[in-house]
Amino acid sequence: MKKVGVAILGLGVVGGGTYRILTEHREFYQATQAIDINIESVLEPNGKKLKELGVPKELIAHNIAEVVCDPDVNLVVECIGGVEAAREYVLDVLYSGKTVVTSNKELIAKYYHELERTAKRHNAGLYFEASCVGGVPILRTLLDGVQSNRITSMMGIINGTTNYILTKMTEEGASYGEALREAQRLGYAEADPDADVEGFDAAYKLSVLSSLAFHTKVPYTKVLREGITDVAAEDIERGKALGYRLKMLAIAKQSETGVEVRVHPAFIKKEHPLASVSGSNNAVFLTGDSVGDLMLYGKGAGDLPTGSAIVSDILYAASRSEPRYSTFKNNANPDKDIKFVTDFASAYYMRLSVTDKTGVLSKIAAIFGKNNISILELLQTPENDGATVVIVTHETHEAAVKNAVTKLNASEIAKVEAVLRVVS
Amino acid sequence: MKKVGVAILGLGVVGGGTYRILTEHREFYQATQAIDINIESVLEPNGKKLKELGVPKELIAHNIAEVVCDPDVNLVVECIGGVEAAREYVLDVLYSGKTVVTSNKELIAKYYHELERTAKRHNAGLYFEASCVGGVPILRTLLDGVQSNRITSMMGIINGTTNYILTKMTEEGASYGEALREAQRLGYAEADPDADVEGFDAAYKLSVLSSLAFHTKVPYTKVLREGITDVAAEDIERGKALGYRLKMLAIAKQSETGVEVRVHPAFIKKEHPLASVSGSNNAVFLTGDSVGDLMLYGKGAGDLPTGSAIVSDILYAASRSEPRYSTFKNNANPDKDIKFVTDFASAYYMRLSVTDKTGVLSKIAAIFGKNNISILELLQTPENDGATVVIVTHETHEAAVKNAVTKLNASEIAKVEAVLRVVS
Repeated sequence: MKKVGVAILGLGVVGGGTYRILTEHREFYQATQAIDINIESVLEPNGKKLKELGVPKELIAHNIAEVVCDPDVNLVVECIGGVEAAREYVLDVLYSGKTVVTSNKELIAKYYHELERTAKRHNAGLYFEASCVGGVPILRTLLDGVQSNRITSMMGIINGTTNYILTKMTEEGASYGEALREAQRLGYAEADPDADVEGFDAAYKLSVLSSLAFHTKVPYTKVLREGITDVAAEDIERGKALGYRLKMLAIAKQSETGVEVRVHPAFIKKEHPLASVSGSNNAVFLTGDSVGDLMLYGKGAGDLPTGSAIVSDILYAASRSEPRYSTFKNNANPDKDIKFVTDFASAYYMRLSVTDKTGVLSKIAAIFGKNNISILELLQTPENDGATVVIVTHETHEAAVKNAVTKLNASEIAKVEAVLRVVS
Repeated sequence: MKKVGVAILGLGVVGGGTYRILTEHREFYQATQAIDINIESVLEPNGKKLKELGVPKELIAHNIAEVVCDPDVNLVVECIGGVEAAREYVLDVLYSGKTVVTSNKELIAKYYHELERTAKRHNAGLYFEASCVGGVPILRTLLDGVQSNRITSMMGIINGTTNYILTKMTEEGASYGEALREAQRLGYAEADPDADVEGFDAAYKLSVLSSLAFHTKVPYTKVLREGITDVAAEDIERGKALGYRLKMLAIAKQSETGVEVRVHPAFIKKEHPLASVSGSNNAVFLTGDSVGDLMLYGKGAGDLPTGSAIVSDILYAASRSEPRYSTFKNNANPDKDIKFVTDFASAYYMRLSVTDKTGVLSKIAAIFGKNNISILELLQTPENDGATVVIVTHETHEAAVKNAVTKLNASEIAKVEAVLRVVS
């Protein structure tokens, strides 16, 4: 029976879940995997958390050096979060040749080259399934399930907080503010919600996912990122009437033109498998040149789902005689060797308020025409003092739409109230 | 760069797809996986297939001995199908210490113990991702993605032919016969469709999937198997009106009571993620004690999707220094050590034709009551000479329902026209 001595850094939500899974499943892993995982050490300054989980005194470490120097520890789970202490600690562990399993998406997105280099140099494993999409084994799938494919596109609902808020707005007609407060009340959103609602969390994850999917370097700084704070309930409602659902989507594409990565709210046809991923659920929909479309759906966060990913990484690491790293390729220079697409193709939803005069529609249509934007659907409804025009375009380009918006706003006949992308 | 010499046995749909993927992606795998896969040998008696794929003459083997003895062949892909020749060939290959990758679900379901034993004894790898659910990496997920979980239940749409037929019946009101003929015309169903429509194909796959998920032996002969040939369009329609979709489901559960495995048509609420898996698509919805609900969705068949699974297995095998087997456990005796549940719990849909007399409903209700079956929904509609009563029950037991059906048919006031299970 293979023996693994584990240390856990941080007993927050994910670290606590990992502690519980390992404690409760020890005999199960002995019986089913022939692996004996023993928790040797825990680093957590908060005594209350240690007590809640019933961590025995002799397991409590007082600093990282104790963990790194413990000869019984082969593998260290990092669940501290943040990037300062976590980076120092993870580097310390890797230098010592011990394997690291982490759920820290920000750490991986910001420092993966340094971490991977260090891991390889010291023959230590580096695993981070838990950093992306909670319990859904999307990294394992990219690395070991569909690695025979050229992945051409990936679309995901990879942030539970924003999906909860948008689902609430869609199903109950709530405003953004109301939905956010409810999410905060239920613990789905932080007191300071920016990391989620402004798309930072999704951008970190998309950087990791697209780097693995495309075998290249996709820095998170290259991800076009727009949040959901300006989304109006009115547009969700109008989109719904046209057969769309608004989702916070992470989109990555690779073609001969280059790599395209973006995180923003977007309308998607209600028949698309991603449209019915609701609440705090997550999903990734990817397309490969052989496998075609493939979707993984499950819990994107939470103590036990994310703990499931961490412990699966531990078992995976223990079942191999050689350490395994990701397949990031470090020889590409993202600023020189990779072409990033910024003027990408997309369809658009636009809401305009217009003055109710004869010929207004033909003037609007002319502005679209001049920018080579072709209209798929147009819906005019009367308002108190004028009218609202909702337009869904055929696929066009970002730059063309920006140009049209400027022209429309300058025209004095129409004001562009909302612009949202539409994916097919 | 690691070098792998591959032989392919059988160039049918899947073998042909594998050949094409390997030929077209050789440089891609060199660049992204540092693995050079070279096709060294092909065994296919049909000259037309060899010609269509443009197989060079020097690769064509004439018998299995040539393949087994070829020192340049490290790994053999078996896509012959059937179990006679395939079993002999695969055993020959394993005896020689070469790794086998196969898409043959019948072979794995019927002989996996023998194959696994032989593989281990000769230190040869044995991989069969492609045997279940085409391109969807469900085995990789069970073995390396959620192996930290006790899997408690698994529900799948794992046969494309029956899903195509039922989708056709649901969406267009076609009869079973009409839908089958259309499926045959499009190549989704064989001329002799029994393996699919009678549930054999799904039972083989469920045997493999549940054995891996539950770390035990689940012989395909233990799978309760009912086909779709008797499904009436009328019941699909009536179920639809009640908010259900009829699907050919493969269901596996494990609890303290035992293991429960069954393949049969069943109604499922239209909001369930499996309900919208339509046409020839496949999906597996599983529940683990840590990860919660997880669904994988994709193409369950076809040359390139299934080829994707085969080539991913080849790359996985090549990336490890030690061969990997499944985690079937051979020490359990399915007839003695494992308890199989036969009187399982389920809700039921029943359609009765009744005589239109006073007191009929109360007599029917009494029969249900005596069998401890509680009614969730009841719908009576008048017919020419009597009435139709549709009943959906709360969860009850198989034996109780069988008893009630016997009593109802003997009562002379009602005839049970259809009984279908309902899953929640």
